[in-house]
Amino acid sequence: MTYLDYQATTPLAPEAFDAMLPWLRDHHANPHSPHVAGRKAKAAVEVARDHVASLFGTGGHVAFTSGATEALNWAIQRTDGPIVTLATEHAAVLDTCAAMAAQGRSVTVLPVGPDGLMDLETARAAIEPGTGLVAAMLVNNEIGVIQPIAALAEIAKAAGALFLCDAVQGYGRVQIPPHCDLIAVSAHKIHGPKGIGALWVRDGVYLAPLLYGGGQETLGRSGTLSPALCAGFGTAARLMAERRVADAAHVADLSRRALDRLEGWIVNGAQEPRYHGNLNVRRDGLDVARLMSSLRDVAFSAGSACASGSGRSSHVLRAIGLRDAQARSSIRIGFGRYTQADELCAAIDRIAAMAESQRIAA
Amino acid sequence: MTYLDYQATTPLAPEAFDAMLPWLRDHHANPHSPHVAGRKAKAAVEVARDHVASLFGTGGHVAFTSGATEALNWAIQRTDGPIVTLATEHAAVLDTCAAMAAQGRSVTVLPVGPDGLMDLETARAAIEPGTGLVAAMLVNNEIGVIQPIAALAEIAKAAGALFLCDAVQGYGRVQIPPHCDLIAVSAHKIHGPKGIGALWVRDGVYLAPLLYGGGQETLGRSGTLSPALCAGFGTAARLMAERRVADAAHVADLSRRALDRLEGWIVNGAQEPRYHGNLNVRRDGLDVARLMSSLRDVAFSAGSACASGSGRSSHVLRAIGLRDAQARSSIRIGFGRYTQADELCAAIDRIAAMAESQRIAA
Repeated sequence: MTYLDYQATTPLAPEAFDAMLPWLRDHHANPHSPHVAGRKAKAAVEVARDHVASLFGTGGHVAFTSGATEALNWAIQRTDGPIVTLATEHAAVLDTCAAMAAQGRSVTVLPVGPDGLMDLETARAAIEPGTGLVAAMLVNNEIGVIQPIAALAEIAKAAGALFLCDAVQGYGRVQIPPHCDLIAVSAHKIHGPKGIGALWVRDGVYLAPLLYGGGQETLGRSGTLSPALCAGFGTAARLMAERRVADAAHVADLSRRALDRLEGWIVNGAQEPRYHGNLNVRRDGLDVARLMSSLRDVAFSAGSACASGSGRSSHVLRAIGLRDAQARSSIRIGFGRYTQADELCAAIDRIAAMAESQRIAA
Repeated sequence: MTYLDYQATTPLAPEAFDAMLPWLRDHHANPHSPHVAGRKAKAAVEVARDHVASLFGTGGHVAFTSGATEALNWAIQRTDGPIVTLATEHAAVLDTCAAMAAQGRSVTVLPVGPDGLMDLETARAAIEPGTGLVAAMLVNNEIGVIQPIAALAEIAKAAGALFLCDAVQGYGRVQIPPHCDLIAVSAHKIHGPKGIGALWVRDGVYLAPLLYGGGQETLGRSGTLSPALCAGFGTAARLMAERRVADAAHVADLSRRALDRLEGWIVNGAQEPRYHGNLNVRRDGLDVARLMSSLRDVAFSAGSACASGSGRSSHVLRAIGLRDAQARSSIRIGFGRYTQADELCAAIDRIAAMAESQRIAA
């Protein structure tokens, strides 16, 4: 199996696995219990929190959550006032905003250009004094483009709105810009375990809880934390920092090799600025379902993993102006730290050959 | 370390650990991805769901959540109408109800008797046509008493209210009564991993999501599921079914041995009906903080783990009429499948001797 679906999820780092193991096999106390075993577990949680926090700026705190979906829901559901967001956001943002709109909260969804990038002047016009929340993604999960978050966050700040950054794909890879008030991240997109994420909250920003109860997290999130998941997340975050330069160079090399092999294919979204571990490409007339069923030992995506089970064509590809047929002839190839150049090249050669044979047969 | 804090969390079953391992070490696909690797992960999730579901009755479906706190919050926040609940519920119920009350929803909190048990006639008077939700615990997490959930659920049904059962402590140990509409459970209380739980929803009951997004769970819960956590939970649930009789006999034996050694101590709450793996006992004048710091190699609780970090005395012990001094001289000893009789007896002998020496010194 060649795994080329890094935007859907990433392989757990062996170091993260090793960090989790003792908390699954040997220790089991509740980190919220005050006895010695509980305090030892709590200490592991706090070490992990420091590692996760170190990839953010200063001036805020990290609350662990069950993942980015919870973090985004928390931020959106527990802020007030009109929301401004982008058409290419993840479903966890757009669907939560739609639910808020159904409750009477104003929601403005800004378009993006054919390159997938937002227009700051359009944003400036839409974000008015009184806007409560501006929510935007750092790196798009489907097409990899990097939005001008720093400038957008400044516009939000000038209008007195809170700025929520969905940094799931960018965290640890792309510098998180200043002026964010709320930042949502997920462990399993940075080689950590599934089932944990975080919301970073700027000091002075108060959010009512989304999950009420024991109040285990000081920022107001309840629920027993898993020391194993925290330790895995923390180790994954530490590795992202330690390996940032090496990982980026490796990904850039892989991307160049992949693009060299995809002559005649069109990259969806801007070539720059983008995260190069995401290659969303199309070839007119490609039958993606047939391609996927012929290449069962290569894991890649026909769109966002979250939406691709649903039969809906990608809202992101529609937002950049692709016709339905173009969107349906697009595939997303995602790679990273553990992808070998030769396996990537071999898989892409097979994808390209299969697409070519479809063209000849058509 | 002798671990006697089974109500706070339970040791992960070795079989559950083994079931999780391949999903952490060898396989990493997103179970919501449609490629072969994703479908394999999805299949593991569904096997686990079947195991978890088999401990409930028929006529409903299981949605995985991040834990019981999320499940309870989902059920309470996404139902409508007046709520009736009990004074001895977990903070995840009481605090969520309080948040609903702050938003204008009527909340009635029924008292319990000195035995910790509710009075059905009081409940019948409080649960009127128009009541939206009745929420009550099967087995109390602090004192172990078993509420008359079957009768309460019938009263709720007769009034047209939904009935939410917090079955966290009872799931897999005590038969879940019929007529529940919503049931919240947690994996780590049944020797599964921390970070996952479930909400069982009766067919025909519709809850709006608490977490919006990709809509990965058919009942409307979004967020990437962890096949590892699901597999661990499923295996733990299967073991609860397979070992129900043996576990119950072991726990009853342990409880008898423990009580034999606690002469002069008073059991908080009814002796029956109760889950015998929970022993909440007090001895007048006991200095629990001193006891805990003298017995650092025995993990037991001074109250609910969720509340015991907070300095608040237990709301459950207050609800059964204990004076503050009595509540503060109470400890909770929790044991179960992996507790050896000799280690339990040795630890209790030490607790009893230490308490006796405090009395003599006083």
